[in-house]
Amino acid sequence: MSSYGRSYSSESYAPSAPSLPESYSQQEDDRRSYGSSRPQSSGYGVHQNHQQQQQYHQPPPAYGQGQGQSSSPTGYSGFPPGTHPDVIRSFEMVDVDRSGYIDEKELQRALSSGYQRFNLRTIRLLMFLFKNPHDALRIGPKEFAALWSCLGQWRAIYDRYDRDRSGKIDLFELRDALYGLGYAVPPSVLKILMSKYDDGSGRKIELGFDSFVECGLILKGLTEKFKEKDKRYVGQATFNYDEFMSTVLPFLVAYD
Amino acid sequence: MSSYGRSYSSESYAPSAPSLPESYSQQEDDRRSYGSSRPQSSGYGVHQNHQQQQQYHQPPPAYGQGQGQSSSPTGYSGFPPGTHPDVIRSFEMVDVDRSGYIDEKELQRALSSGYQRFNLRTIRLLMFLFKNPHDALRIGPKEFAALWSCLGQWRAIYDRYDRDRSGKIDLFELRDALYGLGYAVPPSVLKILMSKYDDGSGRKIELGFDSFVECGLILKGLTEKFKEKDKRYVGQATFNYDEFMSTVLPFLVAYD
Repeated sequence: MSSYGRSYSSESYAPSAPSLPESYSQQEDDRRSYGSSRPQSSGYGVHQNHQQQQQYHQPPPAYGQGQGQSSSPTGYSGFPPGTHPDVIRSFEMVDVDRSGYIDEKELQRALSSGYQRFNLRTIRLLMFLFKNPHDALRIGPKEFAALWSCLGQWRAIYDRYDRDRSGKIDLFELRDALYGLGYAVPPSVLKILMSKYDDGSGRKIELGFDSFVECGLILKGLTEKFKEKDKRYVGQATFNYDEFMSTVLPFLVAYD
Repeated sequence: MSSYGRSYSSESYAPSAPSLPESYSQQEDDRRSYGSSRPQSSGYGVHQNHQQQQQYHQPPPAYGQGQGQSSSPTGYSGFPPGTHPDVIRSFEMVDVDRSGYIDEKELQRALSSGYQRFNLRTIRLLMFLFKNPHDALRIGPKEFAALWSCLGQWRAIYDRYDRDRSGKIDLFELRDALYGLGYAVPPSVLKILMSKYDDGSGRKIELGFDSFVECGLILKGLTEKFKEKDKRYVGQATFNYDEFMSTVLPFLVAYD
C-alpha cells in the first residue's frame, strides 16, 4: 500500500483528464497524479499516446468536438465558440420547450441519440458532476458542450484499450484505460470498482463504454474532492466529520 | 459550521446506536458523538428515551428480538442464543436450499414478509453493512439476527417520531429520529441527505420507514468508517488517497 498514494509522478494527472466545469477543476493545474507509482515520464507519455490514438481511432463524429466550426447556428447563445453543430443539434432536439436547460431524462435522450445508450445511473453521475453546483438538477449549453467533449475523449481512450474490438474491456484494459484518463488506480481500488459489475455468475467481468464512463466519473469526482482537501499535495487529506459527510454524501445522493 | 463536528458530547454516540457486526464496531466502545453540539447529558437522554419508547410503542412482533426464547427450534445452528423463533422462521422460509446463507433477493423476501417492503437499494445497503466483509454478497444466521434486531430498534424510533402516525416523517422528524439512533446530524448534511428524496415536485419531502432505514444505514456506515480513521477522537480524520477511495467506493458499489 505504501507505494501508492505517496509517490507521485509529476505531470501525470492533469494533462489527459478531460476537464470538468470550473467549479470542479479549481486545482486542475496541479500536475500530480493521485495513486500513481509509475515513472515520472508516464504522465506525458499517456497524454501523448492519447493524442496519437485520436489520429487513428477517431471518436464517432457525433461526439467529436469540432474546432473552428461556427458556433450556435440555430440561435442558442450559451454554447462556447467553436462548438460542433452536432452538439448544438443534439441539445436542441431534446430541449423541446426551448428553456435552454435539459434535465436528466433529456440528457439521456440527447446522448443516446447516436450509437451509445447510457443507463440513468451514469446519466445522473454525469449530471451531478457537470452541472453548475448551485443550480438545480439540469444543465445548460455550456455544461452540455463540456460533457460532450469529455465523452468524446473518453470514447477515444476506451476504443484504444478495447483491443479486440469486442465492445467490452476487462480488468487490465480498464486499468490501462483509466490510466489513459490520467488516473493511476491502485489494484485494491480497481478491484472494488470492478466488483460493481460482477453479476455473480463467475464469468470474467467486462465493461461496456457506459460502465467505463461510470467508473471514470466516480474516480474523477472523488479524486477532485480529495485534491481540494489535499492542499499541500502530499497525498493526504484531512477532513472533519461534517466535511467528510458533505463530500461523500452527494455521490450517494446523485446515485439514486 | 464550527460548532458541529468539533464539540462532542460524551456518551452520546454508542449507547443508542444499534450494533453492527464485530468488524464494523471495533470502536463502538468509544462514547463520542460525531457532529453533536448538544449538551453532555443528551446522549444518555436519547438512550433512555429510546428505552422508554420501546415500552409504549413496541416494534411489530416480527421485528422484536425475543429474550430468553429458545434458539434455533428448527435445527439452524448459527443463530445466537435467545434469537426469537420468528427471526429463525423468516430466515428458513427464504433459505430454500438450506445453504445457511441468503442473498439479497432472499433477504428482501424475508424482510418483506411482514408489513414492510424494502426496495432493493436499501436491501443492498443492509447486506453490505451487515455481511461479513470477507464473505461474498450473502449473510448467515448470525448477521441476519443482528440485522433484524437493528431494524426492530429503528422501527421503534421511527414510530416514535412519526408523531401524526402518517407513516411518513419530515425533515425535522428525521433529524430527531436520527438523533434517536445516536447521530446528531448537522443541518447541512441533513439537507444533502434529504435531497435524495426530493421528487422535484416542490412538495414537502417526507420519508417512509424504508427511506429512513436507508438514511440511517448511510450515516451509520460512513460514521463508523470515519471513526476508524479518527484514532484520537478529535473529530478529524486523515486519509491517504488509497484509503479515501477504498473507504468511499464500497458505498457506491453497494449502491448499485
